[in-house]
Amino acid sequence: MQYPEPIAQLIESYMKLPGIGQKSATRLAFYTLGMDEEDVTGFAQALIAAKRDLQFCSVCGNITEADPCVICQDPSRDQTTILVVEQSKDVMSMENTREYHGLYHVLHGVLSPMDGKGPDDINIASLIKRLQENEVITEVIVATNANAEGEATAMYLARMLKPAGIKVTRLAHGLAVGSDIDYADEMTLIKAVEGRTEL
Amino acid sequence: MQYPEPIAQLIESYMKLPGIGQKSATRLAFYTLGMDEEDVTGFAQALIAAKRDLQFCSVCGNITEADPCVICQDPSRDQTTILVVEQSKDVMSMENTREYHGLYHVLHGVLSPMDGKGPDDINIASLIKRLQENEVITEVIVATNANAEGEATAMYLARMLKPAGIKVTRLAHGLAVGSDIDYADEMTLIKAVEGRTEL
Repeated sequence: MQYPEPIAQLIESYMKLPGIGQKSATRLAFYTLGMDEEDVTGFAQALIAAKRDLQFCSVCGNITEADPCVICQDPSRDQTTILVVEQSKDVMSMENTREYHGLYHVLHGVLSPMDGKGPDDINIASLIKRLQENEVITEVIVATNANAEGEATAMYLARMLKPAGIKVTRLAHGLAVGSDIDYADEMTLIKAVEGRTEL
Repeated sequence: MQYPEPIAQLIESYMKLPGIGQKSATRLAFYTLGMDEEDVTGFAQALIAAKRDLQFCSVCGNITEADPCVICQDPSRDQTTILVVEQSKDVMSMENTREYHGLYHVLHGVLSPMDGKGPDDINIASLIKRLQENEVITEVIVATNANAEGEATAMYLARMLKPAGIKVTRLAHGLAVGSDIDYADEMTLIKAVEGRTEL
C-alpha cells in the first residue's frame, strides 16, 4: 500500500535533504500535516524566496541579496585584508565575533583529491583575480577548517599567493577556550605547544 | 550580523520541524540554496499540497485524500474487525505486511496523564460511536505501541469495550523475529515466556 499522493510527494521532498532518510522524512511529513496552515505556507514561501532572491556575491562569493554584498560594498572595512573561508556560514561565524573588520572570500568547498575536487572546482580563480586587481590587499588569512582538506587548501593558497608578495596566514591551532587538556586530541596538544605564547 | 532575510526566514521555518535546532536548520537552509530549482519548487508545492489536499477520514481518522478513505470504502475488507493504532504511519506498517484485511481506527495519540492527555484528547469517542453504529464489528485489536502509554491506552479501551460484548485483543509481546535473546530486555523475555506457543 502507498501513502496518499500528497504525503508521498512530501516525504520524497524531505528525503532530498542531507541526513534525512525515509523514516525521518515520513516523521517530518506527518508532523507537517499537524502544523499551522500559516507556518506551512510560510515554509513553502521561504523555500521559493531563498532560491529566487539570493545569489552569490560576484566579488567575494558570499551569499547575498544585493550584488556586491554588504560587506564588499562597505568602505569602512579594512580593504587590505581578505579572510578566506570554506562556506558562507563561516563568514557569519567570524562576523559574530565582531573582531574582524576586513573583507572575505568564500571558496564554496576545499581541495579534496579523494572527491576529485581540484583548484578549478572551488572559488580560487576569482580570489587570484581579485588580488591582481586590488593592489591594496596585503594579507590573506586562510580560515579553512582544521582538517586534512582545509590544511591542504591552505598550503595550496600559500604556494600560489606568496610569490606575488602577499602575506598568507593561517588561523592558530590550539586548545579551544574553556576546554580540558585531557579531552584534547594529540595533534591539537602538539600544535598548542608549538604555538605557545609568552605570558 | 544577520543572515540575509530570505535565508534567515528559511532557517526559522526549518527550526519549526521537530528535532531540528539552529545548527541543523542553518545547514539545511544552505543545502537548499544549492539544490536544483525544480526540487525546491517541488518541495514548496508538496508542502502546500499536503496541507491542502489531505484530511482525516471521518470514519477511521486515517490520513486520506478522499473522505471516507480507501480502506473504509473497500467492501472486500473484513468489516468485523477494527485494528486500533496510534498514528496513520502505523496503518501503513500494518498494510505493508499484507496479512491484515480488516478495518482500522487511528487514535492520533495515546493516553498520557503525564502530558495531560486524557480520553477526550484522542480519537476514542468516534471509535465508540463506530462500534455502536456497526453491530457487525466483533473484535477490536489494540495495536498501540508496546510502552507504558500504549499499554495504558489498551487497558482503557478493553475496559470501555468489553462490557458491550466486543472482543478486545492486544498484539503479542515477544522476541522480534531475527533478534538475539541476549539483546532482549527482561520485560520482553518475561512476556516471551508467558506467551510461549506449542510446537
